[in-house]
Amino acid sequence: MIGSRILVEMKGDNHLLEGELESVDDYLNLHMLDTVEVADGERLRALGSVVLRGNNIILIMPVE
Amino acid sequence: MIGSRILVEMKGDNHLLEGELESVDDYLNLHMLDTVEVADGERLRALGSVVLRGNNIILIMPVE
Amino acid sequence: MIGSRILVEMKGDNHLLEGELESVDDYLNLHMLDTVEVADGERLRALGSVVLRGNNIILIMPVE
Amino acid sequence: MIGSRILVEMKGDNHLLEGELESVDDYLNLHMLDTVEVADGERLRALGSVVLRGNNIILIMPVE
Amino acid sequence: MIGSRILVEMKGDNHLLEGELESVDDYLNLHMLDTVEVADGERLRALGSVVLRGNNIILIMPVE
Amino acid sequence: MIGSRILVEMKGDNHLLEGELESVDDYLNLHMLDTVEVADGERLRALGSVVLRGNNIILIMPVE
Repeated sequence: MIGSRILVEMKGDNHLLEGELESVDDYLNLHMLDTVEVADGERLRALGSVVLRGNNIILIMPVE
Repeated sequence: MIGSRILVEMKGDNHLLEGELESVDDYLNLHMLDTVEVADGERLRALGSVVLRGNNIILIMPVE
Repeated sequence: MIGSRILVEMKGDNHLLEGELESVDDYLNLHMLDTVEVADGERLRALGSVVLRGNNIILIMPVE
Repeated sequence: MIGSRILVEMKGDNHLLEGELESVDDYLNLHMLDTVEVADGERLRALGSVVLRGNNIILIMPVE
Repeated sequence: MIGSRILVEMKGDNHLLEGELESVDDYLNLHMLDTVEVADGERLRALGSVVLRGNNIILIMPVE
Repeated sequence: MIGSRILVEMKGDNHLLEGELESVDDYLNLHMLDTVEVADGERLRALGSVVLRGNNIILIMPVE
C-alpha cells in the first residue's frame, strides 16, 4: 500500500485521517504525506506530513 | 478461521465489523475482505478491504 | 482454569462475558465456548464461540 | 507485596479493587484473593479470586 | 529524575499524581513515594507509596 | 525531527502539546523541551520539560 492513499481511523479526537502512505514500521506506525482530517465524507483540515502511532490505529482502508 | 466470515468488535467508532478473514499476523492484526459495518443486526456501510489493528480488537466471533 | 466457566470483564460495549475457557495463549487471548453476554446478573445474549483479545481484558473471575 | 493486601485502580467499570496479592507475572498481571470492589471508601461487592490484566491497571497501593 | 518530585498524568480517574520518584523499570512503571492526587493546582488526597503502570501514563513532568 | 518543534496529540486530558523534540526512544517515548499545551490554535499553558509516553501518542506533526 506504500505510495497509495489510505483512510485511517484513530482513537482520540481526529478520528479519520486520509493521506498518502509514505512508510510503515514493524509497530504499524504510519508516516503519511498530504494528510487531511475527514468527517462525514468531507475534508475538514489539511495536516500535511504526520506520523500515526500504530497501537492507536483502529482500522486502515485503501481509498479508491 | 481463514476464508470464513467473522464478526469483530473494535474499540472506537465502528464497533462491529463483519467480513471474510483473509489473513492474520502475530499481533492479531486482521486483514478482512468484503467488510461491512454492522449495528443492531443491520448492515450500515460497505467498507471493502480493511486492516484491523490487533490490540484494538475486543472480540472475534464466527458468523454462521 | 481450562474447561471451567469464567466471567470476563472487557473494555468496550460487551463488558461482561461468561463462558467455558477452551484455551489461553501467551498474550492472555482467551478462546471461550458457549459464551453469553451478562448484565446485572442476567444473561442478555448467547454469543457461542468467541476469541477475546488479551490486552482488552480488565479482569477474569471463576464462576462457581 | 505478595501476601499483603493492596488496592488496585483499573480502567473499566470496576475501578477500585482491594484484595490479597497472591502472585504477579512479568506483565504485571495480578492474581488476587478475597477481592472486593470498593467505591467511596465502602466495600460494594465481594468478587473472591480474580485475575487483573496488567496493562489495564492504572495504579497499585498497599492497604495499611 | 530518581529522588526528585515529578507530576504524572494518568489515564483513568486519578489523572494527576505528584510524588517522589523512587524507581523506574524498563516498561516505565513508576514507583513513587509520598504521592498526592492533584486537581486544579490543589492537593486532594495523600496516597503514600504507589506503583503507576507505565502504559497508562500520559506524561511526566519535573516539579520545581 | 530531533531539535525541531513538533505538535503531538495525546490520549487523555492534555490533547495537544507543542514542543522542541529533545529525544525519542525505541517505544516512541518523546522528551520535549519548552512544551506548551495548545487548544483551538491558542497556547494555554507552559509545561516546560515533559516526557510523553509513546503508546498514548495519537499523532505527531512537524510545526512549520
